[in-house]
Amino acid sequence: MNVGIIGVGMTGFGEYWDKSFKDLVVEAGSKAIKDANIEGRDIDAAFAGSMTPGMFLSQEHVGALVADYVGLAGIPATRVEGACASGGLALQSAYQSIKSGEYDIVVAAGAEKMTDVSTGQATIALAGASDQEWEAFHGVTFPGLYALMAQRHMIEYGTTEEQLAQVAVKNHRNGALNPYAQYRREVTVKQVLESIPIADPLKLLDCSPITDGAAVVILANEEKTRRLSENPVWIKSIASATDTLALHDRESLCQTKAAALAGKKAFMKADLKPKDIGFAEVHDCFTIAEVMAVESLGFCEVGEGGVFTEKGETALDGSIPVNTSGGLKSKGHPVGATGIAQAVECVTQLRGLAGERQVKDNPRYGMSHNVGGSGATAVVTIYEGGA
Amino acid sequence: MNVGIIGVGMTGFGEYWDKSFKDLVVEAGSKAIKDANIEGRDIDAAFAGSMTPGMFLSQEHVGALVADYVGLAGIPATRVEGACASGGLALQSAYQSIKSGEYDIVVAAGAEKMTDVSTGQATIALAGASDQEWEAFHGVTFPGLYALMAQRHMIEYGTTEEQLAQVAVKNHRNGALNPYAQYRREVTVKQVLESIPIADPLKLLDCSPITDGAAVVILANEEKTRRLSENPVWIKSIASATDTLALHDRESLCQTKAAALAGKKAFMKADLKPKDIGFAEVHDCFTIAEVMAVESLGFCEVGEGGVFTEKGETALDGSIPVNTSGGLKSKGHPVGATGIAQAVECVTQLRGLAGERQVKDNPRYGMSHNVGGSGATAVVTIYEGGA
Repeated sequence: MNVGIIGVGMTGFGEYWDKSFKDLVVEAGSKAIKDANIEGRDIDAAFAGSMTPGMFLSQEHVGALVADYVGLAGIPATRVEGACASGGLALQSAYQSIKSGEYDIVVAAGAEKMTDVSTGQATIALAGASDQEWEAFHGVTFPGLYALMAQRHMIEYGTTEEQLAQVAVKNHRNGALNPYAQYRREVTVKQVLESIPIADPLKLLDCSPITDGAAVVILANEEKTRRLSENPVWIKSIASATDTLALHDRESLCQTKAAALAGKKAFMKADLKPKDIGFAEVHDCFTIAEVMAVESLGFCEVGEGGVFTEKGETALDGSIPVNTSGGLKSKGHPVGATGIAQAVECVTQLRGLAGERQVKDNPRYGMSHNVGGSGATAVVTIYEGGA
Repeated sequence: MNVGIIGVGMTGFGEYWDKSFKDLVVEAGSKAIKDANIEGRDIDAAFAGSMTPGMFLSQEHVGALVADYVGLAGIPATRVEGACASGGLALQSAYQSIKSGEYDIVVAAGAEKMTDVSTGQATIALAGASDQEWEAFHGVTFPGLYALMAQRHMIEYGTTEEQLAQVAVKNHRNGALNPYAQYRREVTVKQVLESIPIADPLKLLDCSPITDGAAVVILANEEKTRRLSENPVWIKSIASATDTLALHDRESLCQTKAAALAGKKAFMKADLKPKDIGFAEVHDCFTIAEVMAVESLGFCEVGEGGVFTEKGETALDGSIPVNTSGGLKSKGHPVGATGIAQAVECVTQLRGLAGERQVKDNPRYGMSHNVGGSGATAVVTIYEGGA
């Protein structure tokens, strides 16, 4: 059975001190329901991705909470978590629930409210995505883990700080064109290189920010998609994979094996190759993450992600535009919402509605790549438009 | 497609100060893999139910963690959460993932390590299952919420404290026969009534304990189930539903609408009626919860759960044995593990391997009922043995 996306909606991403988790979910959900041109009662179930509402808000049980506050109490609702890949996994669970024949129309939501705690507390909460006993407990933070990966990438492949900076520059250029982005401003390589050091070699402008936000997509089975949607986007395939939680257990510090595995499966199930993909939203929580992502997904050879970026291949007018939305770096990274926001961007592009940041030549296929922690979870999705 | 259960395993439930979350998961997982007589490499994916490893252990991302520590890093792994119904929802997601055709053999795990924090901190963590803004923030705890439900049930239907105590007495009698139970001892009505008050009318022995534990079941598609299992148990149907998170938003304080809805759907999908069910594991986090459960599931009329219990209908030799395992009350309640432990008991009974607590006359159908929070999530599953 084919599964389509019939509606999308998201809040602006940013710091919303005047809005609650619930407010954000309701805003994104209402937009998606309106976009799908359905009524709430048409929805059979919901899956909500959220990384750690417990540590951010002392609120668990957000599956039922989402259903309740969008006025759908009664429907099956499940929270799905895989650290920063929570949104991607919620999308996958929603997809599987429709493919199983149990439901016809399903909401996949993602939401995180990160600014109700201090930056220090947020850092501790996010460290819950790493191996608590072997990593977080000893004081390592996420910038620290990605810095280790970056250092190893530089040693093994000669990747430079300038190349990493190019990721940020490109993503801010795209994000400046995205009305939903947290940072709608461009930055230069010089600004990135001169921004304050966070964890060597990563500087402030190599890092994605702390963000509030929510995103929702509505999925339907083939029959309902064809009936309800004039311009449907199809989920051609979706695959996830895992790796060891702790970095030190991996064969390589600077290759993301789970992403490579999930990508390979997604391509196989869709019977497609990297060259068939017209654009990709990848998980650039740090600039090095995007470099490793384009390698893992096969858009370039392993070790060449830095050069690939520097050459402009991933720019909006490059051979494979990456993070047309601005990515996590510029659009913002409300962790549990990110995977769903990636789906929103892919649908927007495939509908041809991305405005100034629209990729050229109406590509038929787009891809999203959502990662949890330092790469222990990865979800790769291939979307098809205009079919 | 029919989905079967080919293996089950669980740890003893109790206070394990010498074991970690990981230790518990590995123990239960190894037992289930051995019971299914398969190799780890036969497993296609895992779903792990856990309520709040974030607030208990500062550890999120436990889907990937479970896969990693049982030696299966690489497979898709997803954490599923719905407060104390996390295990039931993990079972449902695992079921749907097989029914979708995406996977053949899938692990559904449940685990919680609750004794690494103080009882006060555990109470705060558990309160994350209620509506933080409208309930927990104002100081209400779970015993408090269920006490409100109990008071209303007593006012509306004349339910007595003695009838509530009978639930505890019966479940301790069953639990005393279960080698995995936290409290393997019987209690009397007098002991329950004289135990210290927690939240009027609930006393200590009306409440389930704080528990560490893990449980795992292995599901397979029809073909693999028939090939691998000599004595398979089938998931005849599984359904979940939600209600408002906050008690004050509900039509009735003492009826669990989500459970009634999920039960109705599960019966409808299985084309069965309450009288067809041979035994049931229900979510007795407090004695009043079991009274409301037997009403919601249609084993007796609404309002008659207390009398039904008093008459012995739910005893091991009654018309519908309820909580043959000892239930949450005596077996223990490691919140995220409970829904899976219920499945383990149902499979054990349908295989005829429950020893001294075996229900008589080899029933064909069993049921589990797993609830999140004060009832905002409910999952009802019907199992079929010997088919």
